[in-house]
Amino acid sequence: MRSMILSVGTELLFGQITNTNSVYLSQQLNSLGFDVLHHHSVGDNPRRLADVIRSAFLDCDIIIATGGLGPTQDDLTKEVVCEAMGDTLALDESELSHIKGVFKRIGREMTENNVKQAYLPSRATVFHNEVGTAPGFALENDGKIIICMPGPPRELLPMFEKKVIPYLEKFMDSRIFYRMIRTFGAGESWLETELLDLIDAQTDPTLATYAKEGECALRVASKRGSEAEAVSAVDAMVEVVRSRIGELIYSVDDEELYQVVGRLLIENYVSISCAESCTGGLFSEYLTRVPGISAVFDRTFITYSNNSKIEELGVSSATIEKFGAVSAETALEMARGVRKKTGSRLCISVTGIAGPDGGTTEKPVGMSYIGLCFDDFEDVQEIRSRFAERGSNRYYSMLCMMHMIYAVLSGSPLKLRR
Amino acid sequence: MRSMILSVGTELLFGQITNTNSVYLSQQLNSLGFDVLHHHSVGDNPRRLADVIRSAFLDCDIIIATGGLGPTQDDLTKEVVCEAMGDTLALDESELSHIKGVFKRIGREMTENNVKQAYLPSRATVFHNEVGTAPGFALENDGKIIICMPGPPRELLPMFEKKVIPYLEKFMDSRIFYRMIRTFGAGESWLETELLDLIDAQTDPTLATYAKEGECALRVASKRGSEAEAVSAVDAMVEVVRSRIGELIYSVDDEELYQVVGRLLIENYVSISCAESCTGGLFSEYLTRVPGISAVFDRTFITYSNNSKIEELGVSSATIEKFGAVSAETALEMARGVRKKTGSRLCISVTGIAGPDGGTTEKPVGMSYIGLCFDDFEDVQEIRSRFAERGSNRYYSMLCMMHMIYAVLSGSPLKLRR
Repeated sequence: MRSMILSVGTELLFGQITNTNSVYLSQQLNSLGFDVLHHHSVGDNPRRLADVIRSAFLDCDIIIATGGLGPTQDDLTKEVVCEAMGDTLALDESELSHIKGVFKRIGREMTENNVKQAYLPSRATVFHNEVGTAPGFALENDGKIIICMPGPPRELLPMFEKKVIPYLEKFMDSRIFYRMIRTFGAGESWLETELLDLIDAQTDPTLATYAKEGECALRVASKRGSEAEAVSAVDAMVEVVRSRIGELIYSVDDEELYQVVGRLLIENYVSISCAESCTGGLFSEYLTRVPGISAVFDRTFITYSNNSKIEELGVSSATIEKFGAVSAETALEMARGVRKKTGSRLCISVTGIAGPDGGTTEKPVGMSYIGLCFDDFEDVQEIRSRFAERGSNRYYSMLCMMHMIYAVLSGSPLKLRR
Repeated sequence: MRSMILSVGTELLFGQITNTNSVYLSQQLNSLGFDVLHHHSVGDNPRRLADVIRSAFLDCDIIIATGGLGPTQDDLTKEVVCEAMGDTLALDESELSHIKGVFKRIGREMTENNVKQAYLPSRATVFHNEVGTAPGFALENDGKIIICMPGPPRELLPMFEKKVIPYLEKFMDSRIFYRMIRTFGAGESWLETELLDLIDAQTDPTLATYAKEGECALRVASKRGSEAEAVSAVDAMVEVVRSRIGELIYSVDDEELYQVVGRLLIENYVSISCAESCTGGLFSEYLTRVPGISAVFDRTFITYSNNSKIEELGVSSATIEKFGAVSAETALEMARGVRKKTGSRLCISVTGIAGPDGGTTEKPVGMSYIGLCFDDFEDVQEIRSRFAERGSNRYYSMLCMMHMIYAVLSGSPLKLRR
């Protein structure tokens, strides 16, 4: 079914809140086999809301709306929807007694405007709100459907999952399954060129590229009569893609790179310690987002000053003088220093120029060096970020560090495709 | 002017990304005096995109669009907009040479599909992209305007601020000026109660509270005929608010807490070193976001394991055994250990239980201890985050560390209002 997600609330148009409801509902509806064709947000304005509903039904069969069901004067969604669908509001005694009960329970007096929430379209399928006071509902007219739910996510989510999905069952004729193939080391335009025949030939499963800061993902999606058919179509395409660009893929299960690396370290019980300069702790911060990482993560030295590199890691001042604090030589001595001090099996270091200042022609902003020791293996890599901004350069260095670890732990070499 | 924010990209409709561009553009456009009446997101589908543009112009004078300007086949915004506005695409040689230059600089070969980005509507006002390859543009026709910008926020934000705002100047009939009063240590409902008479009495300037993770901001806004009038109305209201809750305010210039702290450290030339446990580098990562911080930031020890606390910081194993690794005593010994080792004037430490596991009845998830040494002054604080999630607990600990430093550097005591 062709659908629109409609968000009602002036606070969205002021940029006071981020529309996470649309993200959640899009994920849910797509996986249930609905085509989400539009997101629309509009303020608490009856005339404009009526216009949006009218034009939505030119392209869609169903509108999934959130917001504007509350007790205050500017909550008008119900009234407008009722009029658009040729129905009238009527008092629902059971909802009214629920609302009265909620106020009694929290020991507050119920102000009169709360009664408004118990008025519902006479033909509606009512979705009782177990978390708050405003009920939701579905209203059908002439083959078109509007579903209205409250805006606060903690009320919306349980209502959608427990009430709306069962209601929608009768409209589901297919299921969509998808996987995100996550890659590191190639740009979006290179990947598209490499996979163009697959992208061009697509009917089902479909294949699309998505650029993400510093990396690139591929979405493989299939819409079939049953979930099992969709899964097997997607998995067959994943294997085709893997045969082409397998060395760039680090996950087909929607894991982030740092999560994959954290998991590999924990699973293989590889102890790790680090030395960070330009990233200022960003690498360790990501690694320690992984619950349970304390089983393998020992410590990190954020050695920002030259002195701290010398004192904490034993980098020789001659190396810094001759090659610079940002050099392959310094990076390797940093990693070796961590190994000597901690005895961790895997030691990784980074030193670079994050910007905005400090770049030269030879060593521009965005250049960094990563040193790695893993048991007796040693490596150092020169990295050039294509970003111009401090935060992005640091983020890219962090990704490259994660990928170097991924490479040694998974036995696949680090490849950066140009 | 009546405006729509239009986001183009199928990934939005799949719920793969959150539409933060609409939040940013809504805030910007409202502050420039534009009325934002609609947000609309649509996929990379030419027919549907053309329909949305047509119906948007029934209600709006200007469409601010993002996305679909990239090099790949599914990037079609430019073609559709061009047709809707009665123009044709032409090669822009200067943009082409810019794109070629970017690929040359990063040492990658330019695939042919990148040339597409240099084709622009012949009548367009072009907005050069200083961060990426896809240029933006404005196109006018018959009193209606479409502005197209790239979707990635790191390209969109500088383009909007440096290129689009100057272009929009001629359409502004009033100016909105606002300040965000940033506070730390009080909840939103407490602040609203404290300032209720000001919030209720508002016509212009207006006052509104915004909860932000772990802190709370107040937006003071005024819409007047000239910027000078708006500024003076806002500043008068800021002084009234300051007289009420001045001790909670750390900025009225839209600086984040870590930026204020970084600035104070640099301005006062106070050297700083740190010891982080539960935050895993998050504090240092924030501090080193500040350009120029290397003048004062020396080093950090991320001492995750008990052993590393003992070996690097000289925490006594008896202290850890008696009081626990998460205790006021350990936090203070960590800060003292950093001071002894580095000689930095300001040394700060943190140890806590970020979760999801590891909490007890006495020391629940979300509890942390912060130790601080500043010259001869020593302090240790117990912090309880009211959040339930690992990431939020770490973030709140980081904010409290920043605020303790802010307090000692600005001479105002740390106040946490409940």
